[in-house]
Amino acid sequence: MNFQVIKTDTSTKARLGQLTTAHGLVHTPVFMPVGTQASVKGLSPQNLKEIGVEIILSNTYHLYLRPGHKLIEEQGGLHRFMGWDRSILTDSGGFQIYSLSDLRKITEEEVIFRSHLDGSEHRISPEKSIEIQESLGADIIMCFDECTPYPASYDYALQSMKLTLKWARRCKERHRRKDQQLFGIVQGGMYPDLREACVKGLLEIGFEGYALGGLSVGEPKSTMYQIVDFTTSLLPLDQPRYLMGVGTPEDLLECVALGIDMFDCVMPTRHARNGSLFTSRGRVIIKNAQYAKDSSPLDPECGCYTCQNFSKAYLRHLFMAGEILAAVLNTLHNLYFYLDFMRKIRESINQGRFVEFKAQFQ
Amino acid sequence: MNFQVIKTDTSTKARLGQLTTAHGLVHTPVFMPVGTQASVKGLSPQNLKEIGVEIILSNTYHLYLRPGHKLIEEQGGLHRFMGWDRSILTDSGGFQIYSLSDLRKITEEEVIFRSHLDGSEHRISPEKSIEIQESLGADIIMCFDECTPYPASYDYALQSMKLTLKWARRCKERHRRKDQQLFGIVQGGMYPDLREACVKGLLEIGFEGYALGGLSVGEPKSTMYQIVDFTTSLLPLDQPRYLMGVGTPEDLLECVALGIDMFDCVMPTRHARNGSLFTSRGRVIIKNAQYAKDSSPLDPECGCYTCQNFSKAYLRHLFMAGEILAAVLNTLHNLYFYLDFMRKIRESINQGRFVEFKAQFQ
Repeated sequence: MNFQVIKTDTSTKARLGQLTTAHGLVHTPVFMPVGTQASVKGLSPQNLKEIGVEIILSNTYHLYLRPGHKLIEEQGGLHRFMGWDRSILTDSGGFQIYSLSDLRKITEEEVIFRSHLDGSEHRISPEKSIEIQESLGADIIMCFDECTPYPASYDYALQSMKLTLKWARRCKERHRRKDQQLFGIVQGGMYPDLREACVKGLLEIGFEGYALGGLSVGEPKSTMYQIVDFTTSLLPLDQPRYLMGVGTPEDLLECVALGIDMFDCVMPTRHARNGSLFTSRGRVIIKNAQYAKDSSPLDPECGCYTCQNFSKAYLRHLFMAGEILAAVLNTLHNLYFYLDFMRKIRESINQGRFVEFKAQFQ
Repeated sequence: MNFQVIKTDTSTKARLGQLTTAHGLVHTPVFMPVGTQASVKGLSPQNLKEIGVEIILSNTYHLYLRPGHKLIEEQGGLHRFMGWDRSILTDSGGFQIYSLSDLRKITEEEVIFRSHLDGSEHRISPEKSIEIQESLGADIIMCFDECTPYPASYDYALQSMKLTLKWARRCKERHRRKDQQLFGIVQGGMYPDLREACVKGLLEIGFEGYALGGLSVGEPKSTMYQIVDFTTSLLPLDQPRYLMGVGTPEDLLECVALGIDMFDCVMPTRHARNGSLFTSRGRVIIKNAQYAKDSSPLDPECGCYTCQNFSKAYLRHLFMAGEILAAVLNTLHNLYFYLDFMRKIRESINQGRFVEFKAQFQ
C-alpha cells in the first residue's frame, strides 16, 4: 500500500497519514507548494528543504509547452532537471487548458487548444496527458479530466462528469510506469448525485488515490464544504484524498476536518510576491505605510529565516523598491507559514486535540 | 592601523592585505558586491556569507531617496536594517548624481539634482553626504567628489579636481564617527599631473584610505591602466587603495598587479540577471539555443550551489521562462566566480606565484 492512515480523529474525519512515493515519505495532511514551471517561484530546492517541504506540484501544461516534456525526459526527468529529490505531483494539464476558455475546444477524443505563449495549436488527449506525465516522471500523476465550470446546469455537469469518467478509464489503460501513482479525479459540479456516480465509476476503474476537482471555482464556501464532506464519505478510508487548488489556511483546516489529506494552491506563493503575508495575527499588506518604520518582525511567533532576520520596515523597503529579495523573503515566509500550519494540524491530530486546535484558530 | 600589508609581490605591485573595520576583517585584494538599495539583488545575507563575502557596497544616493537615511538610522543603521553583520562601504552619492547628467547642477557649494524616482529637488553638499553616510553607519565611507567625465579638457579636469579637493577637506572636517573610516577620492581625469596634484592635496588632508575615481568611464583600457599605475605609485604603501566601479575579471587581475586592494562593480550581479555568466571557460550567454539540452553544469570547475546542483539546460529554461530563480541562481554563480577569483589571486600572492597565475589567466 502506498498510503497508511496512522491515526483518525474521533470527532471529525481528520486523519494523520503517510504517503510513500518513489522519492520518500510524505506526512499528511500535506500542503504542496506549486512549482508551475519546474520552480517554486523564487526558492531553491535547498530553501524548500529547509522549510520542510516533502512534495511539490508542477504543471504539465506549462512544462509541455516549455521547455517540453521530451526535453525534460532526456534530461533525466523532472526531479533531476530541477534538482529536487523529494516527491513531485503533476497535474494533468486539464485545469490549465480549461482556464484558457476561448482558446480551447473540447471533443470526446481530446482537447484542442492554443498555447498562451505563441498561439500555436496543440492537442491533448487522456493518453497524451499520461504520456507527458510519464516523460516528466512525477511520483504522483493525475487523470486528464474536464473541470466542470461553476455554475453549470445539471445536464452539462452530467455530460462533463461522464466525459471525465471515460477519460479516466483511458488514462488508467494508458499508464505504464510502476514507479508512479495515478490518481482519479472526482467531478460532478455541485450535484451530490453526480459526485456519487463519479466516485462509483472511478472506484470501479481503481486508482491509487482520489482527487476532488472542480471546487473553489466560484461557488460559495459552504457549498464547497458540503461537496467535500459528501464526497469524502464515499471514498475509501485507506486511500489518499486530494483537494485540488485549495486554499486559504481556513479552508485547509476545514477540509482536513472533512477528511482531506492533500492540498495545493498558488495562494501562499502568489500572495507573497504581491506583498500579502500570512501571520499568526492575520494578514499583513507589507506595502502599507504603517510598516515603514516598524522594526518588529513580520510575525513574532514565526521561526522562518525572514522573521528571524528582518523587520517589517526592511521588508516594506524591499517591496517598494521592487527588489527581487522581496519576492524571495516573502515567499519563504508564506510557505513556512503554510507548512508550519500543516505541521501543527498533524501534531494536534496525533495528540488527539485537533478539535481544540481548530476551535482555537477560528 | 586599519590596514596591514601582509605580503607584497616581488615583481609587481600586488599586495596581500587585511583591512580591519568595526565589523571584522576584510582580506584584500577584495571584490565588493554591490547592494544598491540595501540588498545585493536576489541574494540574502546568508547567501552572501556562504560564498564568502566579507564586505559589500551600498549606494548613498539611492538609500537617501528611499527609504531615507533617517529612517535607516532610526532602524539601528544599515547593518541592522538589512541584516548584514559584516562590513559595508557606502559611496558618497557623487557618482550616481553625476550619472543623472541633465537632472543635476553642480555649484561650488553643493549639487542640486532631481530624484529619478519622483522628480523632486534635492541638494547634497559634502557635509550633507557625510551626514547621510553617518546615519547609514557603514564601516567605510567616501568623500563627496565630482566624477570628472571622459573626455574632459585639461581645464575642466583641473577645476573639477580642485573642487573635489575642496570638498574632500569639508568632508574630513564634518566627519565625526570614530567607528567609520573615511576614504579620499583621487580625481584628475586622464592627466597624470592633475592626478598627482590631487593625491598631494588628499595626503595633506589625510584619510584612512584612497580611492581612484573617474576611471572606467569610457577611456581606453590602456589609459585606465596607465592612470592606475601612475596613481598607486604616489599613494602610501601602508594604506588601502580602492579602484571604484571596476570591472571585468581581467581588469581586477591587471589592477591588482598595479597595486589596487579593493574593487566594486555591478558587472557580476547585473550580468547575472541578464543571463551573461562568467565561467572558467569564458562567458556563457545562457539563453543561447545551444544550451537547451546541455545537461552539464555551467562551469564544471565551479563549486557554487548553482553549478553543484543544476544543468545549463535547467538554467536556460528558468531564464527563458522568466523565473525569479534564474536571477537568484545566476547571481549566486557570478558572485561566487568573482569571489573565488579574488581568493585565487590572494593565494597566488601569498604563495609567491602571482605572476604565474596572471600569465596563466591571459
